[in-house]
Amino acid sequence: MINQLMEKIQKTNAPIVVGLDPMLSYVPEHIQKKAFSEYGETPAGAAEAVWQFNRAIVDAVCDLIPAVKPQIAMYEQFGVEGVKAFQKTVDYCHDKGLVVIGDVKRGDIGSTSEAYAVGHLGKVSVGNRRCTAFDEDFATVNPYLGSDGVLPFIKVCKEEKKGIFVLVKTSNPSSGEFQDRMTDGRPLYEWVGEKVAEWGKDCMGDSYSYVGAVVGATYPRQGKALRKIMPKSLILVPGYGAQGGKGKDLVHFFNKDGLGAIVNSSRGIIAAYKQEAYQAKGMTEENFADASRAAVLDMKKDIADALAAAKKS
Amino acid sequence: MINQLMEKIQKTNAPIVVGLDPMLSYVPEHIQKKAFSEYGETPAGAAEAVWQFNRAIVDAVCDLIPAVKPQIAMYEQFGVEGVKAFQKTVDYCHDKGLVVIGDVKRGDIGSTSEAYAVGHLGKVSVGNRRCTAFDEDFATVNPYLGSDGVLPFIKVCKEEKKGIFVLVKTSNPSSGEFQDRMTDGRPLYEWVGEKVAEWGKDCMGDSYSYVGAVVGATYPRQGKALRKIMPKSLILVPGYGAQGGKGKDLVHFFNKDGLGAIVNSSRGIIAAYKQEAYQAKGMTEENFADASRAAVLDMKKDIADALAAAKKS
Repeated sequence: MINQLMEKIQKTNAPIVVGLDPMLSYVPEHIQKKAFSEYGETPAGAAEAVWQFNRAIVDAVCDLIPAVKPQIAMYEQFGVEGVKAFQKTVDYCHDKGLVVIGDVKRGDIGSTSEAYAVGHLGKVSVGNRRCTAFDEDFATVNPYLGSDGVLPFIKVCKEEKKGIFVLVKTSNPSSGEFQDRMTDGRPLYEWVGEKVAEWGKDCMGDSYSYVGAVVGATYPRQGKALRKIMPKSLILVPGYGAQGGKGKDLVHFFNKDGLGAIVNSSRGIIAAYKQEAYQAKGMTEENFADASRAAVLDMKKDIADALAAAKKS
Repeated sequence: MINQLMEKIQKTNAPIVVGLDPMLSYVPEHIQKKAFSEYGETPAGAAEAVWQFNRAIVDAVCDLIPAVKPQIAMYEQFGVEGVKAFQKTVDYCHDKGLVVIGDVKRGDIGSTSEAYAVGHLGKVSVGNRRCTAFDEDFATVNPYLGSDGVLPFIKVCKEEKKGIFVLVKTSNPSSGEFQDRMTDGRPLYEWVGEKVAEWGKDCMGDSYSYVGAVVGATYPRQGKALRKIMPKSLILVPGYGAQGGKGKDLVHFFNKDGLGAIVNSSRGIIAAYKQEAYQAKGMTEENFADASRAAVLDMKKDIADALAAAKKS
């Protein structure tokens, strides 16, 4: 799957992933109204609204991008009905040929981590059969519990040729509280990065490992250091756009081959219709998916320009 | 809810939580067969088996204990059908008067963590209504992302009078890889413990805080240190029994009031019928729930004896 993802990135010329994190407040009113008229103001109604919103956006951008990243929290908040919408979204994105990164940030120990791994990436045994459950292509994993929490995911990744992105240095303001703590002269996130490189050595695709990392766009200096520590790990970079990360901050996350990073934008794409820049071009609530498409094109250009400028300098 | 939990612990005289982590291999064959005959060897069949297994165990032990801790990974592995069984289990345990600790180990940033918090502990807004989703009483939370990941949970806890247990020092062998890293002369888990105490100050129940901590029974020395760092936090202690923790290891996790810790056992209770000790007493696969009841009684005695011995010495 890492090979497929790298190929798709090159084919679309877009080291970009669209975060399908549909807060209900992003969903245009006409979609909400229609869903509520059918299912009421219930979790089922919210789940339907979210699903219809996702579908329109996926239809509008799927030819431009290699991958999507649904954030499961935004579905889980609506309980079982929300989880059904998550599943529908994953399946639909697969039908559209997209790689699906489940942003689930799971992590537990031993057989429990394995249960998460089979549920999200693998197959679960039921009697004499092996069944898929959520069946994403990649999942994000929290490393706080150490190797015991991560290796069960890697075991499943090897069986299924899938992948993970381990949280190393997250994009949020308080990520330093624990991740930046200095030990033996280096911050914790670098030690986590070392482990990511070690875990990843054992499961290489053609050029990149099945084991990637999450490093926030908001921390370009740390990204530069981590790029060197984990040369074979694809870095998933959140924090672009709405969280403050800019194209020029991103160049440090890439390798010299122009690859090695995939940048996520969620709100900046899926709620682009709320931005004045797109409204001024006539893209409003009614044709929200057009705004999402325009925002993907703008993001592609921003990153391509930044990479080109970096190459020159 | 922390007050209710503390009262129930005292009333049952059992600082015990039963982990409802039903691996399919724990579920007796006759239950699996019945479920598969109805739903096939499918995720729906597995979910039905797990739910029937849980129900029988809850019926057998609910008068002896204050709380249960379903591990959501064991349900999530069966996809949407599994998540439905999780919801049924939570609801049934509530009907039986039990406090429900959702072992979900969630943690993300900002609005995403808030989505997890409302989904598991609070109410989600849909149109003009506020709906509950999973509606557990407590949830476990991963602290790797810092305050940004935890404070949204605390906000919801305050609104709903619910609680969280933050992972501080986990019970697994490799927990030290990152959690034990020394910074400014102290291991990381102590810094996390300091934060737990700080977060918890602001939301106190009568004697304990809404913000508890997870510290593994397998690390009694560390438990002793953390008990002092977080005097007002209830400590949820996994790792008893099957993972190697013993009654005498547990005394350090308690305060002098005989309270302050709640010890989890999962496999040791729910799969007790597989142990020779209970089989010798005629408790086998057919009457597996009787073995679970006997195992709860034995665990209560083990902990009570250890606490009494510690008081004397």
